[in-house]
Amino acid sequence: MMKFVLKNVKNGYRAGVISELGNQPDKTVDTPFCMLYTRGGSAPHLSRDVLNRLKNLPLVAHMPLNILADHHEAVRKFQHGIGKFAAMEDRVVYCSLHDPSTLVKSGYNDKHGVSVWGKGGKLKLDTELFMKIQESFQPDIYQALSDGDTDINSTRKRCIKVVDRTLSFLDSILDIHNKSERLKKTAIFGSIVGGYNEAERVRCVKETVSRPVQGFVIEGFFNPGPDTEHFQINECVNLLQKIIEILPVDKPRLMQSIWPPDAVIQAYELGIDIFDSSYPYVVTERSSALVFTYIIPTEETEGEELPETYEINLTDKKYFADFSPLLKDCKCYTCENYTRSYVNHLLNTKELLASILLMIHNFHHYFEFFESLRRSISDGKLEDLKKLINKPKKLPSVER
Amino acid sequence: MMKFVLKNVKNGYRAGVISELGNQPDKTVDTPFCMLYTRGGSAPHLSRDVLNRLKNLPLVAHMPLNILADHHEAVRKFQHGIGKFAAMEDRVVYCSLHDPSTLVKSGYNDKHGVSVWGKGGKLKLDTELFMKIQESFQPDIYQALSDGDTDINSTRKRCIKVVDRTLSFLDSILDIHNKSERLKKTAIFGSIVGGYNEAERVRCVKETVSRPVQGFVIEGFFNPGPDTEHFQINECVNLLQKIIEILPVDKPRLMQSIWPPDAVIQAYELGIDIFDSSYPYVVTERSSALVFTYIIPTEETEGEELPETYEINLTDKKYFADFSPLLKDCKCYTCENYTRSYVNHLLNTKELLASILLMIHNFHHYFEFFESLRRSISDGKLEDLKKLINKPKKLPSVER
Repeated sequence: MMKFVLKNVKNGYRAGVISELGNQPDKTVDTPFCMLYTRGGSAPHLSRDVLNRLKNLPLVAHMPLNILADHHEAVRKFQHGIGKFAAMEDRVVYCSLHDPSTLVKSGYNDKHGVSVWGKGGKLKLDTELFMKIQESFQPDIYQALSDGDTDINSTRKRCIKVVDRTLSFLDSILDIHNKSERLKKTAIFGSIVGGYNEAERVRCVKETVSRPVQGFVIEGFFNPGPDTEHFQINECVNLLQKIIEILPVDKPRLMQSIWPPDAVIQAYELGIDIFDSSYPYVVTERSSALVFTYIIPTEETEGEELPETYEINLTDKKYFADFSPLLKDCKCYTCENYTRSYVNHLLNTKELLASILLMIHNFHHYFEFFESLRRSISDGKLEDLKKLINKPKKLPSVER
Repeated sequence: MMKFVLKNVKNGYRAGVISELGNQPDKTVDTPFCMLYTRGGSAPHLSRDVLNRLKNLPLVAHMPLNILADHHEAVRKFQHGIGKFAAMEDRVVYCSLHDPSTLVKSGYNDKHGVSVWGKGGKLKLDTELFMKIQESFQPDIYQALSDGDTDINSTRKRCIKVVDRTLSFLDSILDIHNKSERLKKTAIFGSIVGGYNEAERVRCVKETVSRPVQGFVIEGFFNPGPDTEHFQINECVNLLQKIIEILPVDKPRLMQSIWPPDAVIQAYELGIDIFDSSYPYVVTERSSALVFTYIIPTEETEGEELPETYEINLTDKKYFADFSPLLKDCKCYTCENYTRSYVNHLLNTKELLASILLMIHNFHHYFEFFESLRRSISDGKLEDLKKLINKPKKLPSVER
């Protein structure tokens, strides 16, 4: 069963190692890390061979259940789990309830279950169906069914209700889980809900901690969806701090959102260990390439200009005849083979290859950023990284 | 400059070798062959590394000018030609006027020029702009500007007009071409037009043959577009025979269409050497996988059942839990890594990866078919191949 061990890091930063993961027992993962974001079980737009040539590719694939649930009967007949079904058997599979970038409509949960929104519309999951799906999917880790349908405007009554439900779901799930042969090697992450109500958050943490879960998913500050990107941790920083304070240090904390790099660092400093990588996907879908700098300057490179924005939008007409790579000195496949001008042309002609090339670059860039984050933690240079990250604006203005 | 030499083949079938091709002077191509269909300069949905792992990948990339023309100013500034611009410098580039699968609206040509239809709408090309683009693109072969806007309903007057124009364009083009330093190594294929009027077709052939062109593009039987797939060679077989009879045997003949395998064989038997590969793209776009058989049975495999249709549509619900590859025994990347069930799931969730996986399979299948065609010609077994190809129906019925 999954293990998590904290490392000694100078300056007291939190870093750990996860090991003995379900179907990949010989591999380990260093925290903090981001999971590989997937849609329908695959990295968006990328076949397995293209994906496997990415550097620092996350071992853990993040598979939101909502998009996959429509096909669960087929996966059950398949018998070998969602990882193998999606040609992802070389990854560890974490199955979450929702997709951070896909809208979850408010008001569709009750005490019997939770609604997820896939391509086929709404699917209502009670604990029985939820566990039937988990037994078919056989993930290495899954998020316990939860009612995270709260935001800053939720009433105290609502906050009590979601905690009650989520704890009740957890008990039913644990019951089924513990009797399941198929889920023997699978870890459960308990969901921490309760909106912006401190008492309810504390109750949820205490109750969840007292149950046999191997990690925690913190949610309920916003509804998943495209707007997630604009969620400001500042809005809930005190509450998040309070929650993390009473979570056990020796279990990993996961939080799903669309995470720009500044938010990643802020959440990491508060105590989050595991992130998702829907952000580079969202950036790709708006035809942009990540260009922020994560390389801490050495004496040689000191004084080099920082980019003005986190990303550049390749539909901008200023790239029409720009024959440089998406990002100077980037070692990704796209930057080594294609130019800004060519990607601009592919976008203008609406060719899918544009999305493929952007996805490769943006994943590469984001995974390298996480590698840089871990290095800066172990080298005691997180403050330097923060300076680089906090300087550029997030979005460019675009001329078409 | 490009060379074409006919081989001695038993049974009198036509097969040849093209050599000394522009920027790839050391490579040769055996006819009959299909070119690699591209959109915006790339194989649809495939990055260069994925493409390069396909077996029997055509050396000649077919780049329809209509989709690329909007970006020609950038390519001019780039200075190294369209092949390098599109990261296709390892291919020979043939630049055609239209894309066989993109609708060309009728009635937009006149004596000053021809309209092409890209993503940016209509672009009117006179010979001056056309040649400016060719000088920027620096293809290895290009189709001379032509007015192919005729079909079975065109009047005699119209047929006379298109031949007059096309010949006049050709003279202007040759004038500019012969003075161009940049196009020194580039071959011109003359366009044979004239609709369904025999006298005009004969005039066009005779006049074009008398000019210094290195090959011929036969067009004007239909307007390019999605309906091209339903074009029946039978409608023009006598006229096509007549045209080919008076074309010199020692120059290659090219014809663009959406070519199912039975039509390929029929056209090859009439004397066509070069085909395009828009057919596997069109099949991919309707969510189908090619499954027709091109492997001539041996004693061992004799009696094995033939597929009922050329293609199967992976959106059909009968593939929901079908864990076999798209096609049994297929050696393509998709079939070796993914199942029908998973592709069905990707199609249901509208993930682009479905198009990528189908494109890989369909190109693989089509290129293997052309390899089998060449082998069956040299082995004197074309009749056996024809039997296999002519048996299945073209399209499956689909249940959703």
